[in-house]
Amino acid sequence: MAMPLVLRSVKEMRAYSRSAKQSGSRIGFVPTMGALHRGHLSLVEAAMKECETVVVSIYVNPTQFGRGEDFDRYPRNLEGDLNLLADYRVGAVFAPLDSEMYPEGFDTWVQVGRIAQPWEGTCRPGHFRGVATVVLKLFAIVEPDLAYFGEKDYQQLLVVRQMVRDLNLPVEIRACPTVREPDGLAMSSRNQYLSPDERRDALVLFQSQQLAQELVDRGEVDAAKITQAMREHILRVPYAKIDYVALVEPETLQEVTTVTRPVRAILAVRLGGTRLIDNMEIKPKTS
Amino acid sequence: MAMPLVLRSVKEMRAYSRSAKQSGSRIGFVPTMGALHRGHLSLVEAAMKECETVVVSIYVNPTQFGRGEDFDRYPRNLEGDLNLLADYRVGAVFAPLDSEMYPEGFDTWVQVGRIAQPWEGTCRPGHFRGVATVVLKLFAIVEPDLAYFGEKDYQQLLVVRQMVRDLNLPVEIRACPTVREPDGLAMSSRNQYLSPDERRDALVLFQSQQLAQELVDRGEVDAAKITQAMREHILRVPYAKIDYVALVEPETLQEVTTVTRPVRAILAVRLGGTRLIDNMEIKPKTS
Repeated sequence: MAMPLVLRSVKEMRAYSRSAKQSGSRIGFVPTMGALHRGHLSLVEAAMKECETVVVSIYVNPTQFGRGEDFDRYPRNLEGDLNLLADYRVGAVFAPLDSEMYPEGFDTWVQVGRIAQPWEGTCRPGHFRGVATVVLKLFAIVEPDLAYFGEKDYQQLLVVRQMVRDLNLPVEIRACPTVREPDGLAMSSRNQYLSPDERRDALVLFQSQQLAQELVDRGEVDAAKITQAMREHILRVPYAKIDYVALVEPETLQEVTTVTRPVRAILAVRLGGTRLIDNMEIKPKTS
Repeated sequence: MAMPLVLRSVKEMRAYSRSAKQSGSRIGFVPTMGALHRGHLSLVEAAMKECETVVVSIYVNPTQFGRGEDFDRYPRNLEGDLNLLADYRVGAVFAPLDSEMYPEGFDTWVQVGRIAQPWEGTCRPGHFRGVATVVLKLFAIVEPDLAYFGEKDYQQLLVVRQMVRDLNLPVEIRACPTVREPDGLAMSSRNQYLSPDERRDALVLFQSQQLAQELVDRGEVDAAKITQAMREHILRVPYAKIDYVALVEPETLQEVTTVTRPVRAILAVRLGGTRLIDNMEIKPKTS
């Protein structure tokens, strides 16, 4: 297929969407920070199945990175991303400049409450304020009927859902399953940061979640024991630093004490200079 | 004309707007807290001039009132409001319940920065957070092409403009001049609170602004002297309490020291249990 149309300004993007809507298209929107991998492409495929027009945004949003985080070195490769998208039915790629998204004097923020506070919210203060604000802006510009988010960023998904519900945003949020490498590592643009050794060791994230399910399948219900086993598994990598490992209620992200209903394992681990997150549903033992 | 259609749910309101848009109408939106007066009606008239479909919301938004403010006694008279609107070409009135606007678990806020901080922002902490949040929600529900706000609530107008600009909301904001009683008192739903004596004394707000213009016309440029004269005029009413009286830069609301360009006089005064605000453009002396 041909390279997708690239739109740089809010005005052009809005005109494109309005015109597509005018001709009766439903707009499916996939917001990304670029450095596209098969996870993103699965979102594009989901959008293609439901929507006549698919819009992908590629924008490394500065306001969701904290000081000392990886904003400067976050992988940027628009040309490569467009080449990947050329194989898909993408109507337009919205790739604005920072000066278009955050012009001089920008001063309005969207703040989601409780669901944004623990876990990533604690480790990355301000992160979800940046996410909620840019996602709302992108929704206001693209005016999608449906928007597609990966379960990989599980708390982000819940934050976006809460915002959409609370602010009555006229968009339906679709969640798509995490896409993994053959060995189980969750696809992430940040995997590019990993050295070969770190890449091998990064598998402990996935494995620790599998271990959690195995322990539950073998009859363990005590969340503290399960997360302890997960931690021990992760810390077999001596240089791994755990930000958090927890079993939580899937809608509220509150820690559970026992696994008697489906819960979510969530974790964030630093390997050298790279911070990785992952999550997985853990099902209770079926009697 | 007939009584306007009253819609109570977000779903009905959105369906109405979508259907109107489908048939090619531009939607003009007038958000109000009800207790309609000629100020509101001038906004409806402005909307009628530009838009095929006019939507008025009537909703006393609890989140923009602070503790100890007048939320409980704020005048509510839907029947009377609908009777007034019956004389105008209003397609629909959106009058939701609190449970519709702020269901259990509501937890997302829109926060506008610097422009929302001084003056009303200081006197009424949280007020503009409530205003920005409900206006964004109403915009997301009604999806207007244009929305009409009174200059009477001057800082609110600037806060809404800032939010619309920063969040790329697809709506144009129109400002309409303050409508006044024959003696000059700015129309306000809160004027209903005034006793006959207070109603008479309330005129000092308007008069003090006229005085400011007169002083400028007579050659005074010193903002401190002008606001001092305004204060003295207001305090001829012995029980008046001044929250603020200031001459400010019209876009930033920063206090000016001299009147050499057009500035805005802004003030908030309490008369007994009633808090009134007003504002007026003050033009520099010509020649």
